[in-house]
Amino acid sequence: MSVDAGRDTVTDEAVGSLGADTDPRLRELLSALIRHVHDFARETRLTQAEWERAIGFLTATGQTCTDTRQEFILLSDVLGLSMLVETLNADRAPGATESTVLGPFHLTESPVRELGADIDLVGSGEPCVVSGRVLSEDGTPLPGAALDVWQADADGFYDVQQPDVQPAGNGRGLFTTDAAGRFWFRTCVPSPYPIPTDGPVGDLLRATGRHPYRPAHIHFIATAEGHTPVTTHIFVAGSDYLDSDAVFAVKHSLVQDFAETDDPSLAREFGIPNPFRHARFDLVLAPGRTS
Amino acid sequence: MSVDAGRDTVTDEAVGSLGADTDPRLRELLSALIRHVHDFARETRLTQAEWERAIGFLTATGQTCTDTRQEFILLSDVLGLSMLVETLNADRAPGATESTVLGPFHLTESPVRELGADIDLVGSGEPCVVSGRVLSEDGTPLPGAALDVWQADADGFYDVQQPDVQPAGNGRGLFTTDAAGRFWFRTCVPSPYPIPTDGPVGDLLRATGRHPYRPAHIHFIATAEGHTPVTTHIFVAGSDYLDSDAVFAVKHSLVQDFAETDDPSLAREFGIPNPFRHARFDLVLAPGRTS
Ligand SMILES: [Fe+2]
Ligand SMILES: [Fe+2]
Repeated sequence: MSVDAGRDTVTDEAVGSLGADTDPRLRELLSALIRHVHDFARETRLTQAEWERAIGFLTATGQTCTDTRQEFILLSDVLGLSMLVETLNADRAPGATESTVLGPFHLTESPVRELGADIDLVGSGEPCVVSGRVLSEDGTPLPGAALDVWQADADGFYDVQQPDVQPAGNGRGLFTTDAAGRFWFRTCVPSPYPIPTDGPVGDLLRATGRHPYRPAHIHFIATAEGHTPVTTHIFVAGSDYLDSDAVFAVKHSLVQDFAETDDPSLAREFGIPNPFRHARFDLVLAPGRTS
Repeated sequence: MSVDAGRDTVTDEAVGSLGADTDPRLRELLSALIRHVHDFARETRLTQAEWERAIGFLTATGQTCTDTRQEFILLSDVLGLSMLVETLNADRAPGATESTVLGPFHLTESPVRELGADIDLVGSGEPCVVSGRVLSEDGTPLPGAALDVWQADADGFYDVQQPDVQPAGNGRGLFTTDAAGRFWFRTCVPSPYPIPTDGPVGDLLRATGRHPYRPAHIHFIATAEGHTPVTTHIFVAGSDYLDSDAVFAVKHSLVQDFAETDDPSLAREFGIPNPFRHARFDLVLAPGRTS
């Protein structure tokens, strides 16, 4: 019965409208959603004009999305929701590499590359080497682990943001660890960058006096047989905005030194001019379901 | 400090990121929004896959919106939020006509029409007359009141849904009450109709075993100098779905008899073939701010 659904009854009416055959998890999610959205409106005494602005904001957010831009992920990110969901679902294995947000730029398949390849296809930034191993929690190296890597260029843009300027796949690579579980590749040292501010999320940041910057970082998804994958970043030690990331994604354990390195023989080994910057770290996966 | 924003702290971090110069009402709304969205995720232990589906759903909802379709309003409607917001903001003046939802089809300006005009430009449905007065709460007639009217045709479609079939403005009219506060116009008796089910909201209804139908109704917005406007419907007494409106918008006081009328002289007065259906009611506005 929905007649005369009013201030205090419409919530139960809406929850009660979910049919008996609804998938139980969907029912749980929608019931909680309806209750929270209604409580939000009641607590704030949301006005019609505010509701209309919210409808307009959500519509504009959806219409800003394209094949290469995901404004709803960006909205989730700046509200701290992405980081919360990531944290709720993170494997709590104490020795494993901590996770952080996926972010909105993992939109294309990363090109398969050989270990040692340079993912900076333009060569504009400060050259560096990223190297390390993928390990199981007990320290066993994991050969054949997949490492999906993506980063912004030295100017702070991802390839998908500048299809006319950057070649597709710039800053991206899909690597496979060698027999000793090792990975290494060349790139440029990433820069802090602003998340896109020319859409509704940018309007929201401006209206709330927030800057749009993320500290310099490289994204990783590491996957290995019999282990729980990890979606994470490494952050460049000393970067600006490490203490005010616009998307709340910094974890101490993920901050890595990109060490100034003067070592001609190592440079030769990596095929990079000496001196160079060098980030070295291991990614540790917890045994578990490969999902 | 957003470093190591975790399960229990990221909410405060996100709320705390709102700058000191943020408009106080915007801060109140966003703080409540962040807390409720985060609580929703924590309570349901929202998974990454569910979050991704939610992002996809919201994106598709935004991208289904066009100049003539508002899928986010539809979503708000089927979740009972529109009715709740309408009720929260309704003038509680005891004698005034009750309000109900705007709905997603008030997208075009209604054409100005003379009293007595027929808004059924196609003439496909059962002819009827709608007449009454716009009154102030104490019973004083309100001359010069504006009455914005819109309805679906006898097949259950609004003009904007069928631009190739219905002439623009079919089922719509903007009337002005006469010196005695009276209005009257011709139309066809509206039919129950399904809200659009070919978008994400339709998917949601199917997944939850809900029908998409609304009981037969005509929309009104009545506006008069020195009075609080009312956005409402009249529902056709005896219509199907009066007790299970897909958008929870039925109020008893808004159900009106569309009486079978056999009165040749009245038919002549209204310029309608005898017999005809006749809905007669007054719209009562509370004195207040004309917004
Ligand atoms: Fe990034
Ligand atoms: Fe309607």
